[in-house]
Amino acid sequence: MSDSIDRLLQEPVSFLACSGPEEDIAISSRIRLARNLTGRPFPAAASAESRQEVCDLVSAAAAESGALGCPDCFTFNPGEMSEVDREILLERRLASRDFLENPEGTRLLVRSDESSSIMVNEEDQLRIQTLRPGFQLEAVWKEINELDDELGRKLDYAFDERLGFLTCCPTNVGTGMRASVMLHLPGLVMTGQIGPTIQGVNKLNLAVRGIFGEGTDNRGNLFQVSNQSTLGESESQIIERLNMVIRQLISHEKNARQMLLERDQFSVYDLVGRSYGTLRHAYKLSSEEALKSLSGVRLGVDLGLFNSLDLKLVNTLFLAINPAHLQKMAGRELTGSERDICRASLCREKLKQV
Amino acid sequence: MSDSIDRLLQEPVSFLACSGPEEDIAISSRIRLARNLTGRPFPAAASAESRQEVCDLVSAAAAESGALGCPDCFTFNPGEMSEVDREILLERRLASRDFLENPEGTRLLVRSDESSSIMVNEEDQLRIQTLRPGFQLEAVWKEINELDDELGRKLDYAFDERLGFLTCCPTNVGTGMRASVMLHLPGLVMTGQIGPTIQGVNKLNLAVRGIFGEGTDNRGNLFQVSNQSTLGESESQIIERLNMVIRQLISHEKNARQMLLERDQFSVYDLVGRSYGTLRHAYKLSSEEALKSLSGVRLGVDLGLFNSLDLKLVNTLFLAINPAHLQKMAGRELTGSERDICRASLCREKLKQV
Repeated sequence: MSDSIDRLLQEPVSFLACSGPEEDIAISSRIRLARNLTGRPFPAAASAESRQEVCDLVSAAAAESGALGCPDCFTFNPGEMSEVDREILLERRLASRDFLENPEGTRLLVRSDESSSIMVNEEDQLRIQTLRPGFQLEAVWKEINELDDELGRKLDYAFDERLGFLTCCPTNVGTGMRASVMLHLPGLVMTGQIGPTIQGVNKLNLAVRGIFGEGTDNRGNLFQVSNQSTLGESESQIIERLNMVIRQLISHEKNARQMLLERDQFSVYDLVGRSYGTLRHAYKLSSEEALKSLSGVRLGVDLGLFNSLDLKLVNTLFLAINPAHLQKMAGRELTGSERDICRASLCREKLKQV
Repeated sequence: MSDSIDRLLQEPVSFLACSGPEEDIAISSRIRLARNLTGRPFPAAASAESRQEVCDLVSAAAAESGALGCPDCFTFNPGEMSEVDREILLERRLASRDFLENPEGTRLLVRSDESSSIMVNEEDQLRIQTLRPGFQLEAVWKEINELDDELGRKLDYAFDERLGFLTCCPTNVGTGMRASVMLHLPGLVMTGQIGPTIQGVNKLNLAVRGIFGEGTDNRGNLFQVSNQSTLGESESQIIERLNMVIRQLISHEKNARQMLLERDQFSVYDLVGRSYGTLRHAYKLSSEEALKSLSGVRLGVDLGLFNSLDLKLVNTLFLAINPAHLQKMAGRELTGSERDICRASLCREKLKQV
């Protein structure tokens, strides 16, 4: 049986509710590791029975090692969950779209503060993830490395001396690691520097994506920067290279914000004010406009333009305005236009309180 | 010497600051009378000397009769005023664009509460105006008729037994009267009924115009409905016909608002809320957007959606956001983009107080 999503929703999300380094620009740092077990077919080729066995092996390893804080961790079986509950996992960045679209014979283990989780039978048998607020890839690496070791003592990982960890897709072979930092870059977008910046980062063999996975859709001016290759570099080398680029991006973004303020401060105030005005007073709010407005308000908080509004509230709204979260809050399925009304209502209420 | 515009600006504007019948839809009722003096050329054909004499004759008539509350009235000589001061008169609807574009040898007399005024040497030698809040053409007619009589006892009006009052343009001959009511019709605009409605009104030989004179520009959803002909009907007949149509328009507008609320209340709340949010939080506001937003907020006040916002404040802002008023407030000339910043600042401050 799956744990209740409602219980998950009651827990604070540590990466949203806590502070982190450079949090005015870096929303979160994340690392995931791809792992598989020796002598077992990759999930796509595995029988239902084999998939189930892998789920149980991973659960047992977590239980025995106390990884993810088990037994005080959540266990979800996506195959037994409603669609909206599965979407909750996606919106909270605990599961991928691919994982949820083939939910039979999968499992998701989640630390109670949602800082770490394991998808079982996504593309690989294990996708281990750790997520922290702000820009702190080393700390994330330290944490996920320990988690990986704990599990590795109980599980027989498929590992090749020459290649490293074996994964379903060749792009993950080696470290099996993808490290990423989510950045909020309204300054680079407003000054038109984002295009050249993304091109430059791509040339360094790093990927820049919009939120929620693939595509370069930059809703809410949120960008995820991650490593592309997993082979030929150690984990620390990958992180070091990523850190260097992220530091530069943060510095560029700070300069862009400064330039905007010096060149035309009222345009910045106007964007921030209108964003707040929309969230505080609209009665119908599309997801796209809500993200755009939250981005504007976040910029205002960063620039010290609000007295009693903090990043935690803005971060929390970035999550709460998503369709599945709105529907859980309403306690029923909502049509698109009903969601727009609920989304506006939520934003008005939350901002009224400050 | 002209009176000081600054003194005028300190006085409350009665038609904005007072209540009137049907004020949720009818902003103001106005009547103007065109008059000329026997044996003197119309202003366009008159010598500078003759124009000056007419100014002095009218001033003397007002002084002797106590019309417009003289001597406690304002006397402006537009030819001696700065351009921005002249624009103030236009924005306060005390003077016409035509009048101010040829300011030499003109004069403007204004009752201290701005409810009545006389332009001397506009198209006609006298254009007498009375303005009241809300929908009350009879009261306006009574007042302007008395004012006209007071002046007529001192001045020798050009009058023909068969034609009536003689005027420069044949369209004003007869009563020389134009009566108009300014209506706020967001409901008819939002439901798409405004086009057919205007066409229907035009067929009744009444004109529908946008604010500030000619053209059908409907900025702020404000429309002025007035009589077209001045000949062949008595003043009371004109007013009666206009009253009947205005009553119908007000009823249509009320129905449209009701229909909007029943069909999709959240769209109405959204428009009102966003309008308020823009005025309350923007840092750059064009004249057009300010009018549109004030229209939305006015609708909200009419519908009882605001606790502590009244029509007087909204009406006052409709005036104060105009370019010359902004420049007088700033105490200096402003560029277009400076005005947008001042306009936003004014709206933010005024709405913050409620």
